[in-house]
Amino acid sequence: MSLDPSIRDRIISSVDQGFDEQVAFTQDFIRFPSTRGAEHSVQDFVFRALRDRGYAMDRFEMDQDAIERHPGGAPFTDKHSRAPIVVGIHRPREEKGRSLILQAHVDVVPTGPAAMWTHPPFDPVIEGDWLYGRGGADMKVGHAANLFALDALRRIGLQPAATVYVQSVVEEESTGNGALMTHLRGYKADAVLIPEPESEKLVRANVGVLWFQVEVRGVPVHVRTMGSGANAIDAAYRVIGELRRLEEEWNAEKADHPYFGDEPHPLNLNIGKIEGGDWASSVPCWCKIDCRIAIYPGTSAEEAMRRISDRVAAFARSDRFLGNMPPSVTFNGFQAEGYVLEPGSEAEAVLGRAHQVATGKPLETFMTAAYLDTRVYALYDKVPALCYGVHGENIHGFDERASLASTKRITKAIALFVAEWCGTEAVKV
Amino acid sequence: MSLDPSIRDRIISSVDQGFDEQVAFTQDFIRFPSTRGAEHSVQDFVFRALRDRGYAMDRFEMDQDAIERHPGGAPFTDKHSRAPIVVGIHRPREEKGRSLILQAHVDVVPTGPAAMWTHPPFDPVIEGDWLYGRGGADMKVGHAANLFALDALRRIGLQPAATVYVQSVVEEESTGNGALMTHLRGYKADAVLIPEPESEKLVRANVGVLWFQVEVRGVPVHVRTMGSGANAIDAAYRVIGELRRLEEEWNAEKADHPYFGDEPHPLNLNIGKIEGGDWASSVPCWCKIDCRIAIYPGTSAEEAMRRISDRVAAFARSDRFLGNMPPSVTFNGFQAEGYVLEPGSEAEAVLGRAHQVATGKPLETFMTAAYLDTRVYALYDKVPALCYGVHGENIHGFDERASLASTKRITKAIALFVAEWCGTEAVKV
Repeated sequence: MSLDPSIRDRIISSVDQGFDEQVAFTQDFIRFPSTRGAEHSVQDFVFRALRDRGYAMDRFEMDQDAIERHPGGAPFTDKHSRAPIVVGIHRPREEKGRSLILQAHVDVVPTGPAAMWTHPPFDPVIEGDWLYGRGGADMKVGHAANLFALDALRRIGLQPAATVYVQSVVEEESTGNGALMTHLRGYKADAVLIPEPESEKLVRANVGVLWFQVEVRGVPVHVRTMGSGANAIDAAYRVIGELRRLEEEWNAEKADHPYFGDEPHPLNLNIGKIEGGDWASSVPCWCKIDCRIAIYPGTSAEEAMRRISDRVAAFARSDRFLGNMPPSVTFNGFQAEGYVLEPGSEAEAVLGRAHQVATGKPLETFMTAAYLDTRVYALYDKVPALCYGVHGENIHGFDERASLASTKRITKAIALFVAEWCGTEAVKV
Repeated sequence: MSLDPSIRDRIISSVDQGFDEQVAFTQDFIRFPSTRGAEHSVQDFVFRALRDRGYAMDRFEMDQDAIERHPGGAPFTDKHSRAPIVVGIHRPREEKGRSLILQAHVDVVPTGPAAMWTHPPFDPVIEGDWLYGRGGADMKVGHAANLFALDALRRIGLQPAATVYVQSVVEEESTGNGALMTHLRGYKADAVLIPEPESEKLVRANVGVLWFQVEVRGVPVHVRTMGSGANAIDAAYRVIGELRRLEEEWNAEKADHPYFGDEPHPLNLNIGKIEGGDWASSVPCWCKIDCRIAIYPGTSAEEAMRRISDRVAAFARSDRFLGNMPPSVTFNGFQAEGYVLEPGSEAEAVLGRAHQVATGKPLETFMTAAYLDTRVYALYDKVPALCYGVHGENIHGFDERASLASTKRITKAIALFVAEWCGTEAVKV
């Protein structure tokens, strides 16, 4: 049942009214260099923003034991963030509608060499329609859109007629443990919306993601006799070759997986980091590679991890050098499974109507090959988990940027979605 | 003209007499963890050892400008050692013989992971004939042999009848700037002996060595769209492949170079260190490799550097990704040329006789594929530069060790060589 057209129009113009303030807030948000582990101050910023709006507040640490016991939890390393999770809670006067989790993450990926950026990475420069900055599109723009969508309702005297949890998490870019922690803390709702930068489309299917490190060891010798030594950098490259063969085998199975068959290469293996050797004149005796690989929905993380470990072990046995000292495989991040948003849910229909009003176009769906926190709610709460958000460019790259026009459309769509999904009531006085 | 047999016998038994003290001194020497840049304290240890023996002392810094202007000098980086050079000077009562430089270096190569050592790397354990420790065989054992060879003469009331410079340098393992600095400071002699661990053989020919770093840059993207990005780690491996082709071409020219034609693979390229990328989930936008390659004697460092730079540039132009952002090639260490010790010198004949007496065997010569500081004196002073020393194993590897029996033989050979080359006179009282 659609929203009343007069409420609809008032919501849209209310988002327009608040948009300058929303952009300024988003710029302040981007100024926090909140890379992994450095999200303490930005979470305090979010906490104040929610508390000042009158939400009931919950702020909590990760529970490492509970997370590591959970099949979707990732192991902790010394790089794991210790920043808190922040939840702002809206409780209506009367619970009439359907409850909702609005979630976003504050952690951002590394900037890479600052010299490759046109503007400094955490300087939120606006040029035309583009708002620049590391972690803007992904996803402080969406994070702010959640807040300002609710603000737009309030501006016209309305609030959701159901419980809404506004959740601000960390560790989305490395383990997914932040979203899992809100689940373990007991937060549940009838639907979840996470406005990741999905170019105004809804994610229909999503890969799982594993992180792992392979460490190769060898026997160093003087370069003058290098024929008799083993070069760990060369050996690591042979391991990479074998992992690429595994990647191709997995991609060859794509037709067996709905929503994946038409993708040219749905599962990507990334060799993201490499370190090896001590200096130019010694044959290197160690090399470590940090890898990220995607898996199909329906494949368990455990099964995929075993296939990777077994594959590396079998390859090592066939290699003259690696056979003597087999490489170690350590899973040191995401152990996340993929999910499919089954078509036909009421939540999707409501978002479709909101999107149509906000953008004038029907809502498209697609498969995305990246990790998404929505997996926690899709897999473990089995509720509609909607990942849908702004149009951005250079996500994880240099000169990351978000479209401001798209930001406004998305904010309208979220506000309309909340109003219809939760229903509305007059603001408490 | 050979040494008088009675002097010869007294020298040999004097080395035997002092050997326990020599071994204890060498163990103290090995306890200094004198990796690159960390040689200050060990140079003070050497300074005291020379001063206490009555040598005139000179201690001086590197002259960066003078070194970088010299064709055999290597550029300074922030890793370059700032430790001083130490020279102990023996001046005879009457200059009757031929002058001599006895040289050794105190810098040692990195240990690699300490867990791969049987004993801690700087713990000079003796087991049977073996003295263990990083930088023992290469070359604190030889360094001590220089001192104790002169001590052995003194013990029987003799000293060289010519000027002898006992030189203790740094930067032998990375630039060769230490030896070059002694040359620039004006130290010259009629011959030079450097007791590197050459298994009791004399180096006839020696490669030149270049260090360089290749840095690849690329455009990072989110892993979900990695097809459109460029992976700098993969690109670095393609550059390595091209460098290996260059290496094979250079090795194919070996027959044109005397003393190299019979070596299976005289010129080695080592990829000694690699670093790239920031973390598993971003397509890496940078990768750096540190390389070391050898060149034939007679090839100028400048010419070889140009061939490497040109080759990388040409390869980059042919590569879809590298063509957009060509890799940089930086020469950041050795720019050292090789040398040949021309047969027939009187210095070689004297060393041959000393060796025959000390070991009972004729002196063999060979080509070595490692950098040697002797190149400074061979190339720029054009004097006989003898590289000859102890038998060691696992040089630059784990469990580096030197043979004590060989150490004693080498010390005798050095003492006999000094006595015949410089002549002897009674110790000053």
